[in-house]
Amino acid sequence: MKSNTEVQMLLENEYDDILLKRLHQLHNMRHQPNQFTVLVREIPLCGEHKARDCSVDHFFSKYHPHSYESYQILYDGEDLEKLFNQAKSIKSKIEKLRHHFIRKHNRNLLQSEALNNDAQIEQLKETLQELFRRIQHTQSKMQLRAKELPVAFVTFKSRWGAALAAQSQQISNPLLWITEMAPEPRDVLWRNLAVPYRYLPLYKFGVYVAASLLTVFFAVPVTAVQGIAKFERLKKWFPPAMAVQLIPGLRSIVTGYLPSVILNGFVYIIPFAMIGMAKLAGYISRSRKDIKACNMVFYFLVGNVFFLSLLSGSLLDQIGESFSHPRDFPGRLASAASAQADFFMTYILTNGLSGFSLEILQPGLLIWDSMKSCMWDRGKKKRPYLYSLPYYRIIPFVALGILIGMVYAVVAPLLLPFLVGYFCLGYIVFINQIQDVYITTYETCGQYWPYIHHYILVAIVIMQITMIGLFGLKSKPAASFSIIPLLIFTLLFNEYCKIRFLPTFYQCSVKDARDRDDFDEKTDLMEANLRNAIDAYCPPCLRPPDIEDVESSSLEPLLTST
Amino acid sequence: MKSNTEVQMLLENEYDDILLKRLHQLHNMRHQPNQFTVLVREIPLCGEHKARDCSVDHFFSKYHPHSYESYQILYDGEDLEKLFNQAKSIKSKIEKLRHHFIRKHNRNLLQSEALNNDAQIEQLKETLQELFRRIQHTQSKMQLRAKELPVAFVTFKSRWGAALAAQSQQISNPLLWITEMAPEPRDVLWRNLAVPYRYLPLYKFGVYVAASLLTVFFAVPVTAVQGIAKFERLKKWFPPAMAVQLIPGLRSIVTGYLPSVILNGFVYIIPFAMIGMAKLAGYISRSRKDIKACNMVFYFLVGNVFFLSLLSGSLLDQIGESFSHPRDFPGRLASAASAQADFFMTYILTNGLSGFSLEILQPGLLIWDSMKSCMWDRGKKKRPYLYSLPYYRIIPFVALGILIGMVYAVVAPLLLPFLVGYFCLGYIVFINQIQDVYITTYETCGQYWPYIHHYILVAIVIMQITMIGLFGLKSKPAASFSIIPLLIFTLLFNEYCKIRFLPTFYQCSVKDARDRDDFDEKTDLMEANLRNAIDAYCPPCLRPPDIEDVESSSLEPLLTST
Repeated sequence: MKSNTEVQMLLENEYDDILLKRLHQLHNMRHQPNQFTVLVREIPLCGEHKARDCSVDHFFSKYHPHSYESYQILYDGEDLEKLFNQAKSIKSKIEKLRHHFIRKHNRNLLQSEALNNDAQIEQLKETLQELFRRIQHTQSKMQLRAKELPVAFVTFKSRWGAALAAQSQQISNPLLWITEMAPEPRDVLWRNLAVPYRYLPLYKFGVYVAASLLTVFFAVPVTAVQGIAKFERLKKWFPPAMAVQLIPGLRSIVTGYLPSVILNGFVYIIPFAMIGMAKLAGYISRSRKDIKACNMVFYFLVGNVFFLSLLSGSLLDQIGESFSHPRDFPGRLASAASAQADFFMTYILTNGLSGFSLEILQPGLLIWDSMKSCMWDRGKKKRPYLYSLPYYRIIPFVALGILIGMVYAVVAPLLLPFLVGYFCLGYIVFINQIQDVYITTYETCGQYWPYIHHYILVAIVIMQITMIGLFGLKSKPAASFSIIPLLIFTLLFNEYCKIRFLPTFYQCSVKDARDRDDFDEKTDLMEANLRNAIDAYCPPCLRPPDIEDVESSSLEPLLTST
Repeated sequence: MKSNTEVQMLLENEYDDILLKRLHQLHNMRHQPNQFTVLVREIPLCGEHKARDCSVDHFFSKYHPHSYESYQILYDGEDLEKLFNQAKSIKSKIEKLRHHFIRKHNRNLLQSEALNNDAQIEQLKETLQELFRRIQHTQSKMQLRAKELPVAFVTFKSRWGAALAAQSQQISNPLLWITEMAPEPRDVLWRNLAVPYRYLPLYKFGVYVAASLLTVFFAVPVTAVQGIAKFERLKKWFPPAMAVQLIPGLRSIVTGYLPSVILNGFVYIIPFAMIGMAKLAGYISRSRKDIKACNMVFYFLVGNVFFLSLLSGSLLDQIGESFSHPRDFPGRLASAASAQADFFMTYILTNGLSGFSLEILQPGLLIWDSMKSCMWDRGKKKRPYLYSLPYYRIIPFVALGILIGMVYAVVAPLLLPFLVGYFCLGYIVFINQIQDVYITTYETCGQYWPYIHHYILVAIVIMQITMIGLFGLKSKPAASFSIIPLLIFTLLFNEYCKIRFLPTFYQCSVKDARDRDDFDEKTDLMEANLRNAIDAYCPPCLRPPDIEDVESSSLEPLLTST
């Protein structure tokens, strides 16, 4: 009881601490346009003008008169995107020809060949000019009106106005004029904003079903491949594998490690599969997509690494068993957990050593990048490859470590020192990675924490269920029953944390918004920040095509060649 | 499948219709002060003045500058209430003496007796004056400050401002400055506003536990009393019961009906027990308390009338059985439902006939009122006894009727005509009662509907589970499995209704609020409505004691007597 209360006090302090850090960071990032902006979805047509953009203007200037500033309606940019892509490919062709020309020029090429090349470039440039004209035509107001989406970014004169508008229900039908705080401009997934709002639940439901099926049936292909990849069968189907037999000792290594290599290979792919699925769910920001993928990966790991390693048989059998005999579940869990302590000790050790060294070396990204540069980006000037921290790949594994630690703190405390070593190593590795390797593509200001908190609580709940089973196995029914109030207390604590902390992670309070406004007004930054916010949410397809860039950069080498 | 979709379309139309009626009614009740007012709870102390009232003023004038008008902070009125009660009892004593005096006066009483009576009245009046002085002293600002509660009604200049303030999070800690739309002044339970907000979840949890225990263990005392009240035993313990044997035929009626009379007697008490419990849960308005009691009574009836009549054994056994073998549940339900069709037919008939005739005659209220007027209100001038419609006693029984109808529409459709008769009779009875018998003590504008909708959905879900079991029993596993998607569809429909309709039942949209403001401004009623709202939320303990009333009404007979 006491240790339970202590863990929960620690958790509450941590939540509080992270909330304060979040608020502090939000105060520091006052200049960001998202603090002034609200994303509005499901905008109905204006009855008078049969358009959505005037509808937005009418609505907000009437119903938020004190604070409404301007709006940016979004358009279906598929056609424009195609045109931009065409322009890009033509630009790269010109670039290539010029590159080719300059190289040949050095070797004194024939006059006719030079002329030919020149003509080709001129032709391409004309096509490009034509494309730019078409883009500009498509970007004109009249053309765009037909492609209006019922989505707009509405900018307010103050953070205070934006906070109030984002939190209130606009009209009596809560499925129209839906407002929420806008994500950062660099965080927006523009393409997903075109997904009709009423289909979003279907998309999300579909993705959840797919992720659940993947979680439940993941073991099937793995065991199938493991079955096929037995050395004896391999010899029959793939005779060159016989060569392994020539080197003494290699065979035993191959037969011993092959199944676990296959399993780890499959598990390595999972985060990428999950992020791919999350992409389809229509989240409007990268951060939300990553968080949801992180969530799905965590539950996958709990199901397929934790439970499946503990309990034999397929996950489907286990779920069926738990549904038909829910009372036996704690006992089964406890007996399996005590039996598998060694397995998890090795798991932590190998996962720690291999996982973190892999994280430092980044073999996947290295291979991917070299493949890309060799195959389809050949000849292009190389940018250093920079990725953002893949939270969805890292957090679930760490959370799994916490889960294992929690459960084995009761069953086999000898595992804990290994786990502490694992976390220390992880801390060193990730501090290095975050500071020196990855770049920031969005800033959530701590929005991952509620999820991590949730994972820790899942771990505590599983630990307490295991304890119920453990005391039951040791025939101490009184101790076993005394855990049940503890379990209820944990669940109530979870509810309390949700009420106390969660709202501030998703919305901005009136006081904070107003205080930031006042601070800006005192330091005379309000106008600059607001001007910044008005322009920030221009969708990429509406940006003017960078004609000058091509003109200047392309004209220069031509001038030198003449 | 088709009928399921049709039922859900009907339900959605009905929900939409009731929502429109609600909005229309709210528009008609524009003058009500609650549309301008927000209830604020958990107000922290002002750091400067160590008081809460200036804290409210500072906060709202700073963070809602455009719309804040005034506030009414609440005080712990227990002492004042005691004083008021004392004053009331003295007043009634004076009244009684005067009554006595006038009656005797007619019969030419002695001069000395008249003087004596006069002196007594004078003495009582002095005590009353003293009490009034004490009340006025306690009501003075300085005295009240020590008794401030962290609760205030804040009135805004417009409905628009109130709607925005009620829906937004005020500061980063969501457990301080909690705002919600205020209930109507006549609907407020002032005493419950003194309950500290942080204890409310505990209160509610306690009440839910108590209600669940009552539901689960209700059968125990009932069967115990039924066991004791067997005629053979009664004869032994209560010999006068032997008299029954003297009248031929009476014995068989008593032994036959006694158990069901006992059961119905217990069930009759339940709504009163539930409303008593709901009173303890700390709801701030009568309407909320009644709605929650209604909810508890419904689940009680589902558990104890529906399930317990279907399945034999105690409810606890049934719950345990369902948890340990959840898969057998539909089959058990279906076989029991087909066996008990006759029972429910008689139940509907007797409940309809006896229930509605009882409702018309109101025997409980009649007895209660006559008991009150005979025992402790004797001699007082009689007011006609008027009560508000006891929704918590009526809605659950009607909802139980719907549940029985839904389930037996599949199992034994012959029951339906009886049910239609039951509903028609009920409609006639209640139209009469609502128009002529009951008075309105609060207006929720349709807030009961989401609950009734929920009861209907519970009925549909139980029907579909029964159908799964029924097809299983008739060994048609394909039909049985095809119900499962239907069940999921019903649950999804429920979620949709929650998202689409529920928010508008609990909060006022920005547009509606602003439109009502504009309407008022056009008709020049805004000022009057606002002035009305400012004064409306004065707590009863702060109202000035009605000295004049006593002075004038008490002086007049004295003047005639001299």
